[in-house]
Amino acid sequence: MNTQPLKIVFHGQNAANFRHGFEALIAPEHEVLDLSDALDQTGERAHYESADVVIGIKLNADMPQSLKARLFHAPAAGTDAVNTALLPAHCTLANCFGHENAIAEYVIAALLMRHVPLARADQDLRAQRWTYWAGRPTALRTELGEQTLGLVGFGHIAQTVAGRAKAMGMRVHVANRSPISHAVVDQSWTLDGLHDFMGSCDAVVVCLPLTENTQGLIDATAIAAMRPDAVLLNVGRGAVIEEQALYEALKNRQIGGAVIDTWYQYPTPTQAECAPSRFDFASLDNVLMTPHMSGWTSGTVRRRQETLAENIGRLSRGESLINVLRGPLT
Amino acid sequence: MNTQPLKIVFHGQNAANFRHGFEALIAPEHEVLDLSDALDQTGERAHYESADVVIGIKLNADMPQSLKARLFHAPAAGTDAVNTALLPAHCTLANCFGHENAIAEYVIAALLMRHVPLARADQDLRAQRWTYWAGRPTALRTELGEQTLGLVGFGHIAQTVAGRAKAMGMRVHVANRSPISHAVVDQSWTLDGLHDFMGSCDAVVVCLPLTENTQGLIDATAIAAMRPDAVLLNVGRGAVIEEQALYEALKNRQIGGAVIDTWYQYPTPTQAECAPSRFDFASLDNVLMTPHMSGWTSGTVRRRQETLAENIGRLSRGESLINVLRGPLT
Repeated sequence: MNTQPLKIVFHGQNAANFRHGFEALIAPEHEVLDLSDALDQTGERAHYESADVVIGIKLNADMPQSLKARLFHAPAAGTDAVNTALLPAHCTLANCFGHENAIAEYVIAALLMRHVPLARADQDLRAQRWTYWAGRPTALRTELGEQTLGLVGFGHIAQTVAGRAKAMGMRVHVANRSPISHAVVDQSWTLDGLHDFMGSCDAVVVCLPLTENTQGLIDATAIAAMRPDAVLLNVGRGAVIEEQALYEALKNRQIGGAVIDTWYQYPTPTQAECAPSRFDFASLDNVLMTPHMSGWTSGTVRRRQETLAENIGRLSRGESLINVLRGPLT
Repeated sequence: MNTQPLKIVFHGQNAANFRHGFEALIAPEHEVLDLSDALDQTGERAHYESADVVIGIKLNADMPQSLKARLFHAPAAGTDAVNTALLPAHCTLANCFGHENAIAEYVIAALLMRHVPLARADQDLRAQRWTYWAGRPTALRTELGEQTLGLVGFGHIAQTVAGRAKAMGMRVHVANRSPISHAVVDQSWTLDGLHDFMGSCDAVVVCLPLTENTQGLIDATAIAAMRPDAVLLNVGRGAVIEEQALYEALKNRQIGGAVIDTWYQYPTPTQAECAPSRFDFASLDNVLMTPHMSGWTSGTVRRRQETLAENIGRLSRGESLINVLRGPLT
């Protein structure tokens, strides 16, 4: 097969996560270089400008502007930090998924944790207390499989969660902009039926990206439509759930609880530690708080490496690319 | 439909767990009575002897001997405490399952807990530490779905676990006395290949009842055949895994860990608290210890009530029974 040798740069710490073992996935004639986030080492800006493929999550006005690159590939789903106005017209922007399985494991683990009291049972039995012993009426737990899971959005992540939830025995409900029909979905609503949907679920998982249309979609009235014992999960983007409404619903114990992985405030290069919201979620005992970790597994890295390598192979052979967010402007 | 009214007794504390709402599941002409474990209240022994159906888990020489009952129904899978030699020849012994979903949730929860560090992530983020934040190379976790699950035995419980494990993406291996073939099983061994099987799995779940043939089946040599990072789970019966061999394998960190729900020592009516083994498992940090709780859910109770009611209906209509362990002796 006739392939064109490409110069590929991995830009910054995030991209570096996908570097180990990468050469083994691509043809040997390609050149691979590692560049720092700041591009402040000798020759780094020139390498960045002359690369055929940039693998990175950031493009802004402080960075080199006249790129040769024909492919800017985020090793992530989100490309919020890529200013597409700065991408050359001849450059394709692509992204990676591959985090669906990881996020589904996070969701099922967090849901099961609410039903199976493993940690407390272990603590008690170590002290010779058989608190949860079968046969004790006070030890009866509930089953996740008897419940209804609601998915807000029905993209890659929600579909993967849906399959696992269905296998656990759950009923699966979906709210989505466009009507959907899928083997494992028991009932679905479009967004004008959002409140009916919210009231039909024991657990609602927000799986939406942040857009103009999704920001604040889950507001105080949507949360008020939930069952008083239902739990709200966010593995999409923080701001899809209205920040103050979420905090107050939990503080006032209006819903059964929450599992929040995507937040309103994040650490910055100059501040490694910070609270994830301007509200004091850490003072609440009915929220499980995790640091935007749900998709971050070695499996996700491997699957994203495979996507990157696939697109590099396609580019070098002049074939059409996959996971294209913006093709060359013509 | 012509049905015969039956006198049904619920014997003891365990049976009492299945009593609430039971009348709604059976025809109104039946009589239902509740008897104490000791049968020492006025008239209790006479009621026990004259019942058509006894629901209980125990029959021994201290209890009434000349039973009228045509059905002795355990509301549980195990009937170890029923001395079948004391059952009248005309009496059928039946049991209940219905715990498969509950046990499968326990197994999947315990397995996922080893991959998704929810509790530590929550603890850290409450202190503003983003330890497991995606993008941090040190925060990468592994996926359960990339692993191989091994099931020792392939009855009700193992089959239910298998379906959920497969949906999570796992490879499913089985070791069973007789060869098996099943849609979700990737590879299976008979017991002469037990050691090969043990070495093929990342997690081995013992799902066997205790019999002459299963006692000590998982011995020191079988455990030694496991991968050094593999985990051993027991939701069957304690003594299927040789007690000292399990303790020493964990103490010497010969395997990755264990999740043990079924044990070697249990509380008695006179001793409510006790260690679950003569070995000091509580001193080990690589075992999750739970008090024989895996099957104990409200769903299990409901499904077992349905089985009890089904057999009562069948008996009253003269139909053949389900879940029969021993039919009438002829």
